[in-house]
Formats: sequence, structure tokens, C-alpha cells
Amino acid sequence: MLKDLWKRRLDLVEEKLVAELRENEALNETLCSAMKYSLMAGGKRLRPVLLMAAADAVGAEGDAYVTTGCAIEMIHTYSLIHDDLPSMDNDDYRRGKPTNHKVYGDGIAVLAGDALLTMAFEVMLRQKGATPEQLVAIVREMSTAAGSNGMVGGQVIDLESEGKKIDLQELRKMHMAKTGALFRAAIRSGAILGGATEAQLAALTTYADKFGLAFQITDDILDVTGNEETIGKPVGSDERNHKSTYVTLTSLPEARKMALDTIEEAIDALEEFGDEADFLRDLAGYLMERNK
Amino acid sequence: MLKDLWKRRLDLVEEKLVAELRENEALNETLCSAMKYSLMAGGKRLRPVLLMAAADAVGAEGDAYVTTGCAIEMIHTYSLIHDDLPSMDNDDYRRGKPTNHKVYGDGIAVLAGDALLTMAFEVMLRQKGATPEQLVAIVREMSTAAGSNGMVGGQVIDLESEGKKIDLQELRKMHMAKTGALFRAAIRSGAILGGATEAQLAALTTYADKFGLAFQITDDILDVTGNEETIGKPVGSDERNHKSTYVTLTSLPEARKMALDTIEEAIDALEEFGDEADFLRDLAGYLMERNK
Repeated sequence: MLKDLWKRRLDLVEEKLVAELRENEALNETLCSAMKYSLMAGGKRLRPVLLMAAADAVGAEGDAYVTTGCAIEMIHTYSLIHDDLPSMDNDDYRRGKPTNHKVYGDGIAVLAGDALLTMAFEVMLRQKGATPEQLVAIVREMSTAAGSNGMVGGQVIDLESEGKKIDLQELRKMHMAKTGALFRAAIRSGAILGGATEAQLAALTTYADKFGLAFQITDDILDVTGNEETIGKPVGSDERNHKSTYVTLTSLPEARKMALDTIEEAIDALEEFGDEADFLRDLAGYLMERNK
Repeated sequence: MLKDLWKRRLDLVEEKLVAELRENEALNETLCSAMKYSLMAGGKRLRPVLLMAAADAVGAEGDAYVTTGCAIEMIHTYSLIHDDLPSMDNDDYRRGKPTNHKVYGDGIAVLAGDALLTMAFEVMLRQKGATPEQLVAIVREMSTAAGSNGMVGGQVIDLESEGKKIDLQELRKMHMAKTGALFRAAIRSGAILGGATEAQLAALTTYADKFGLAFQITDDILDVTGNEETIGKPVGSDERNHKSTYVTLTSLPEARKMALDTIEEAIDALEEFGDEADFLRDLAGYLMERNK
């Protein structure tokens, strides 16, 4: 079930992203091309898929919220473009392709990221079947998650901890902001759009935080055990760069155990839900098996 | 009247910006400091003041919308930080102070800009006395104005036309996007919050577009006639950089005439308004006398 539904929704997202890019056709060709280059570079579309699965879980039809899913994918993509810049992580490859600034230059890469972040807010307002109250709530979720106390704040901590050894608690705080907040926004936005009750929203928020943590631990594991071609970037880079990760701060078996426990906690958070939440359960389970 | 009211509202904006920064206290000190450095570097606060004046014009109390005014000032500040980067205009000074990346480095400057743009959307949702419909409308105005068909798109055209001679029509198109769109969003947002009718909104949009054009022409004039200390950056830089401007493409007297005519058109657009629109009229008139 997992793979079929994921693939179907991934296709839905791809299709909608192309449509939204066309709708927003920028007044400048270079900018258009740079935005499209990174936005359509593949990827698992995990955040939109989580958003739709959260809507399912509260009894709505997840497919209906693909527009907001695309908006969050734009925020995710912008963050990758900026993180890859020479003044930050200085990465030359992403998903097996040269990074945005390698193709378009640093200036255009900054601006393509800026434009994608801004476009996300335009696009989420185009979500059909949402009340103005729901739209306001989603804009709030996304802006809080992406901002100085979320994604951007986490990236600053990451930059500042380069070459320094940080402890498990700091590592957790950094990732909670850098990647966790956006998973939380995806899941909470899907729940809000689907009409979640307060109790459902609280349970799904717990699921989201556990999911985000497990995602990061398995990401660190993949950097050691992954296949370079499959993940599209060099493996072992964390160790080479003396980066603190869940693996380097503990050990591979310990990190695996931590990931398993966290996935279990994520699934446990869904106990009040029926089989409408099966896709969310499967998505948590997938984290242990993922190879990219 | 102009100076007193402007000064009073400028103080209101400064105070509110400090409060909003405190409210959003970033989880990282460096980021906080970099955001504050540029946001509190002075400036005329022209966009918030225009927003409040537009609310006045439709019979509301402009002061009430200082929160949304602060949000637009954050968008404006983020754009200055990114435009100043070495990969773009490579400017070392802004308002008489070293630019953000000169103080904090390129990476943090990119992130401080990102955080301010994102925070703007958080802050505008905190506007009191606005309906969810109005909040959605404002988010739409701001995201459209700041995005790939507005400010960011204009900056890309600006980057690409460096060293090239462009004609008056292209220059206008570039500025309409790069600076005009945000003036338009400021004025339209103030009008929407103040409860403008469709006809009022249309008239104020015309005013906004004329204002934006006149602002740019007088900006180009200032680059030739301005005092370096007063404007806080080197004068004559446009000519040195072989930039096409309203002055270099015509002449100083012709640019002055064009500015005067455009200001008159801006004021004419307000003919259906009573003295509630006097502040907007004064603000248009000020463009001809400004020395920074």
C-alpha cells in the first residue's frame, strides 16, 4: 500500500508543481529556469505526502490538499538552494545534479531561493476548499516553522557548530529547528485543512516531532551506510567534515536502536486513530528501511 | 503637517519593530543580532508610513495598522540585505553603516534576510482588528509583490542588465517590479485593512504606481545631486557603474520634469478623496524635495 499511494501522490505533486510554476511564470526567464531546476529535480516529496496523509488521518481526502503540499515543497527546496551556497555548506552536488549556484551562479541562486520561499505563500492561498481561517492558520504554521525559530534558526546553529563538537541535546535542538519544524508544519497543516479536533492535532504534533527526529537519525545512519549513487551525494561526508551526528556521538548500533524506538513512539502517538492513519504509520515504518 | 505626522508614525514603527523582534527572539543570538542590525538601521520607514496613510485615506485610523507596516518594512530590509551581497550589487555601505555581510559574513547575511522575509508573514498575521479575509488578502498582496513577478524578478533583471544599455521602457519595467510592486502592496494593504471600496482601491493603486515611478526617478536624480553624508552612500555610483537610470537615459532637467509630471499624476489619482488623503498628497509632494 505504502509504495503505491506514495507514488500516486508523488505524481500528483509533480503535476501540480509544474502547473503552479506555469501559473507564476516569472517575468524573467533565467529566474524561471533556476526555480524550476531545483524544484523539479526529483526528490521524495516527503513533506507534501505527509501533509496529505495527515489530512487522511482525520477523515478528509488527502489528495485535495496537494496545493498546500506544493507550497511546503517550495519552502523545502528554497532551503536546500540556500544551504548549498558557498557561504554555507558549499555543496557542489544535490540529488546527483550540480547544485543551483553551480549552474546559475551565487546571485541567481540566492534569488531563486527567495522567489520560491515567497511563492510558497502565494501558492498556499490558492488552496481550494479551505476557509479564510484555515488559510491564516496554515500561513502561521509555515512562517513559524520556516523562520528564525525554525528552519533558518537551525541552519545558523548548524553553521556555527561546524568543526565544534556539540552534545546530543544540542544536536537535537538544532535538528528540531532545522528539519523538524517543517515536518511539523506539514503534518499540522494537513490536519488543520482536514478539520482536525484539538486532540487529534495534539496527537499528530507528537507524531510529527517523533517522525522528524527519526528522520534525522536515519539520515545520519545513511551517511555511513548509504550507497552514493542512490542518495545522490557523497557518503561519509559527516565524518570527513567532523560533523556531530547521531552516529558519531553514539555508535551505529545505538543510533539504529534510537531510530527504532523513536519510530515506535511516532506510531504509538496514533493509537486513537483508526485505519485512516495507516499511511502515516507506514511512512514512519519506512524510515527504517529507506535507502535514500 | 507632513513632517510631524511622519515623525510620529516613524517613532511608532520603530517602537513596534523592537517589540516584534523581542516577540520573535530567535533561538540563536547571532541571527537575532544580524536581523536587528539591518532592521533597526534607521531609514525613512516610507512603506509603513504609506500603508498607514492609505488607511487614513479611506477613513480609517492609520495608526492601527502599524503591525502590517512593520511586516512590509521587514520585507524591504531583507531585500536590501540580499541586494548588497557580493554576488549581487556588492555594496559595502548602507545608510552610512557597513552592510550586513560586511559585519556578519555572507552566510549569516543570507539567513538574516531569509528570516526577515519569513518573519514578515508571521508578523502580518498578528495585525489586530483585521478579519481572516483581510489577512488573506494582505498575505496575497505581499507575496505577489515580493516574489518572482515583483521585487525578486526586478532584481534579476537589474543583475542581468548590468553593464548593458537598456531603454526607458525596460528601465520602467524593471523598477516597476523591483521597487514599485512593494509600494503598491503597502498602499493596497493599508487600503484593504481600512475597508476601501473597489473604486477607492483602484484609485489608490494608480496613486501607488505613480508614486513608485516618481520615487525611482527622484532616486536616480539624488544619485547625481545628493550629498554623500546625507544619503549614506557614495553619490555618482550609477554613472561610474554605467548603470542606465532616468538621468543617464535622458538628462537631469528632463528627469526632473518627468518626476514633477508623475507626482502630479499621483496627486490627480486622489481627486475623489477628501482631506483624509492629504497625507498621501503630501508624501507625493515630498518626493521632489527629498534629499535622501
